[in-house]
Amino acid sequence: MNSRAAVVAEFVGTAVLLIVVVGSGIMGEKLSAGNAAIALLANSLATAAGLYVLIATLGPVSGASFNPAVSFVLWQRGLLSSRRLAAYVPAQVIGAVAGVWIAHAMFGLPILQASEKVRSGFAQGFSELIATSGLLATIFLGPRADARAMAGLVAAYIGGAYWFTASTSFANPAVTIARTLTDTFAGIRPADAPMFIAAQACAAVAVCVVLRMLSPATRTNSEHPS
Amino acid sequence: MNSRAAVVAEFVGTAVLLIVVVGSGIMGEKLSAGNAAIALLANSLATAAGLYVLIATLGPVSGASFNPAVSFVLWQRGLLSSRRLAAYVPAQVIGAVAGVWIAHAMFGLPILQASEKVRSGFAQGFSELIATSGLLATIFLGPRADARAMAGLVAAYIGGAYWFTASTSFANPAVTIARTLTDTFAGIRPADAPMFIAAQACAAVAVCVVLRMLSPATRTNSEHPS
Amino acid sequence: MNSRAAVVAEFVGTAVLLIVVVGSGIMGEKLSAGNAAIALLANSLATAAGLYVLIATLGPVSGASFNPAVSFVLWQRGLLSSRRLAAYVPAQVIGAVAGVWIAHAMFGLPILQASEKVRSGFAQGFSELIATSGLLATIFLGPRADARAMAGLVAAYIGGAYWFTASTSFANPAVTIARTLTDTFAGIRPADAPMFIAAQACAAVAVCVVLRMLSPATRTNSEHPS
Amino acid sequence: MNSRAAVVAEFVGTAVLLIVVVGSGIMGEKLSAGNAAIALLANSLATAAGLYVLIATLGPVSGASFNPAVSFVLWQRGLLSSRRLAAYVPAQVIGAVAGVWIAHAMFGLPILQASEKVRSGFAQGFSELIATSGLLATIFLGPRADARAMAGLVAAYIGGAYWFTASTSFANPAVTIARTLTDTFAGIRPADAPMFIAAQACAAVAVCVVLRMLSPATRTNSEHPS
Repeated sequence: MNSRAAVVAEFVGTAVLLIVVVGSGIMGEKLSAGNAAIALLANSLATAAGLYVLIATLGPVSGASFNPAVSFVLWQRGLLSSRRLAAYVPAQVIGAVAGVWIAHAMFGLPILQASEKVRSGFAQGFSELIATSGLLATIFLGPRADARAMAGLVAAYIGGAYWFTASTSFANPAVTIARTLTDTFAGIRPADAPMFIAAQACAAVAVCVVLRMLSPATRTNSEHPS
Repeated sequence: MNSRAAVVAEFVGTAVLLIVVVGSGIMGEKLSAGNAAIALLANSLATAAGLYVLIATLGPVSGASFNPAVSFVLWQRGLLSSRRLAAYVPAQVIGAVAGVWIAHAMFGLPILQASEKVRSGFAQGFSELIATSGLLATIFLGPRADARAMAGLVAAYIGGAYWFTASTSFANPAVTIARTLTDTFAGIRPADAPMFIAAQACAAVAVCVVLRMLSPATRTNSEHPS
Repeated sequence: MNSRAAVVAEFVGTAVLLIVVVGSGIMGEKLSAGNAAIALLANSLATAAGLYVLIATLGPVSGASFNPAVSFVLWQRGLLSSRRLAAYVPAQVIGAVAGVWIAHAMFGLPILQASEKVRSGFAQGFSELIATSGLLATIFLGPRADARAMAGLVAAYIGGAYWFTASTSFANPAVTIARTLTDTFAGIRPADAPMFIAAQACAAVAVCVVLRMLSPATRTNSEHPS
Repeated sequence: MNSRAAVVAEFVGTAVLLIVVVGSGIMGEKLSAGNAAIALLANSLATAAGLYVLIATLGPVSGASFNPAVSFVLWQRGLLSSRRLAAYVPAQVIGAVAGVWIAHAMFGLPILQASEKVRSGFAQGFSELIATSGLLATIFLGPRADARAMAGLVAAYIGGAYWFTASTSFANPAVTIARTLTDTFAGIRPADAPMFIAAQACAAVAVCVVLRMLSPATRTNSEHPS
């Protein structure tokens, strides 16, 4: 994989992911006459569809993580070089923020916002722990070499997890940071983001430990880090 | 298939299945402002998506039954050893119960509950008979060696059967037992569970008889029981 | 294809198709609190899911027409023998009626009903002409040898056609006859059925003419009628 | 690809696309009791399903653009001859208009209409710029030789983009022109169409520039223009 193209793909892919998540949340809330289930149905279906397209098309370019937690586990497993990790994570975070702002521009909203949506408490943090663990398990059990198959799995997982977790499954630190910057359906209060990110990090570490127990392939003995 | 990994996969898979079924039911009911069709739409789509991911990823590990009725028919057909059947069924039941409790924790609800949702009468039992027969037919007519294809078939079948049966298609004794332990959207009153399980068992026996008539492969003459 | 198994597959498949169409219509209407769009959403998604499963699993057994109009065009194209056509059509019609009655039993409704749902006028007939032509075009342009691919195409076509036609796309004479026997969401008044069937027959003849113009393969010069 | 068949496929495919878009919009609005989110959910799912069928079946015949912006970029990339482009664009526009009129006839509405639906302002134009760029990126990053895979990608993209853009993602000049001719859910006021088309054209040019920077294959050095 070409290095510069890969970093651009992570930036663009994460930006589009946030355009989809935030944009479809705005549209869903605007049209659903106060029925939040219909808004979340639109939001979850659009996100699943967007993830499918992004992973299927950009997977061959960068691996299509769009997610620091996924990139971290790939690095721990020896599947991503330290240099690549150091480039991917800021590209993902900056891309995510850019995506939120593009969504605001598309819907004629103020670009700079801060969310006031409360998402706090044990249930929310525990939900993020489960949601992120499930996402990582899906990715590391799935066929990583087949971008369309992987895209279908991740899309189905996240589309379902919007509903079966109390937190609607952020499961992604870059996404969490970016969603503090929108006071719309998909937002999260900045004060609540650290707990979300901590839970996501705990899940990433836990999955690394489990994967190492199952097969001791590690970063140092890997043959083909990209 | 590695035996210990297979039992763990049945446990984890059934737990996640119940997290999805119960969790998305809670979320759907909470957000849908009393419109049960929207709640069931979310519930059925999330369940289908979850089944797709679980069968596609865990199918190669354990066969991904997550269901004593399916494991029973596999055993009858000589496709599952007696030892494996004896380990799978308790793993499925205990996994299912664990999944319900994890869902409760994720949504900040009391862990221990008993359902008060009435699901009784001939129509419900007949629905379970049809639903389970259809699920088993789908599995035994489908390409069991191709986990993603099978995952798509089972997900489509159950997603549809939530709607075309009066019982919303439990079609699984482990799931039925576990759903007595949640007083939420997906619950079933403990007193109504025996009829559901009896109907599911009748369907399993009936499918075994039909399969034996169609092709007389039996447990004793099988060459590759796992 | 084994002849007896094929006829049974057409009977069972058409019965299950009607269980899905009528059953999900009843459930959707019961739960949707008078919002017919939500009922039709459930009805169309369940029907698409059911068609996917039925065609993918029974396609290799009988071709999975479940539809006299499709069987007729297959026969005209030399892809179905006269003997097979003569056995399929009654199996489809009787299967469809049986499916409606099973759906009634599952929902605890009177088995014998007659629909009072008016579906008359030019717009309805013209819709059936378009709907049936589109279904036949999809089937004859699609990869008939690949049951799962064909299943995906037909499921997507019908799921969409529930919405883009004024008649909700019956597109099937056996289905039309059977739906006169249910006074629920999916029903059609017996008096309106002949126009539906006439429109479906016109579409079948028109598609035959177009296909013969495109490629003159005919019943008589076919090498492998099944 | 046979030339005449290809032009007919572009005509018929674009016509059916508009039947789906306009027809499902009419049906969705009629049934959804004023909840525009449910109408758009039906509209987006039906459009995605229709696109899947159309691209999967007609892709091998004509490439299944159904969209002057897509055909233009194909031509710029040397993947479509000038002669073919000159035949496709009018076929797409006339097909689109025919599709709107057929949809009106199916729903018993006056054939000739002009939309009064206002879709103006920077947010709408910017949405079309993003929507069209995303569609073109999806098509040019995707596996153009695999019609079903491409069909899945485009269907998922457009199904999602109905929700994540403020304009519901027309992303197609032929579709835009045709939708001025329907005063229903999917319509656009004739006065607002030029800005939509200008934004779509800007996106097409921008994507051409980016593709040329990434790989300098051009119209003149192509070996196999069709």
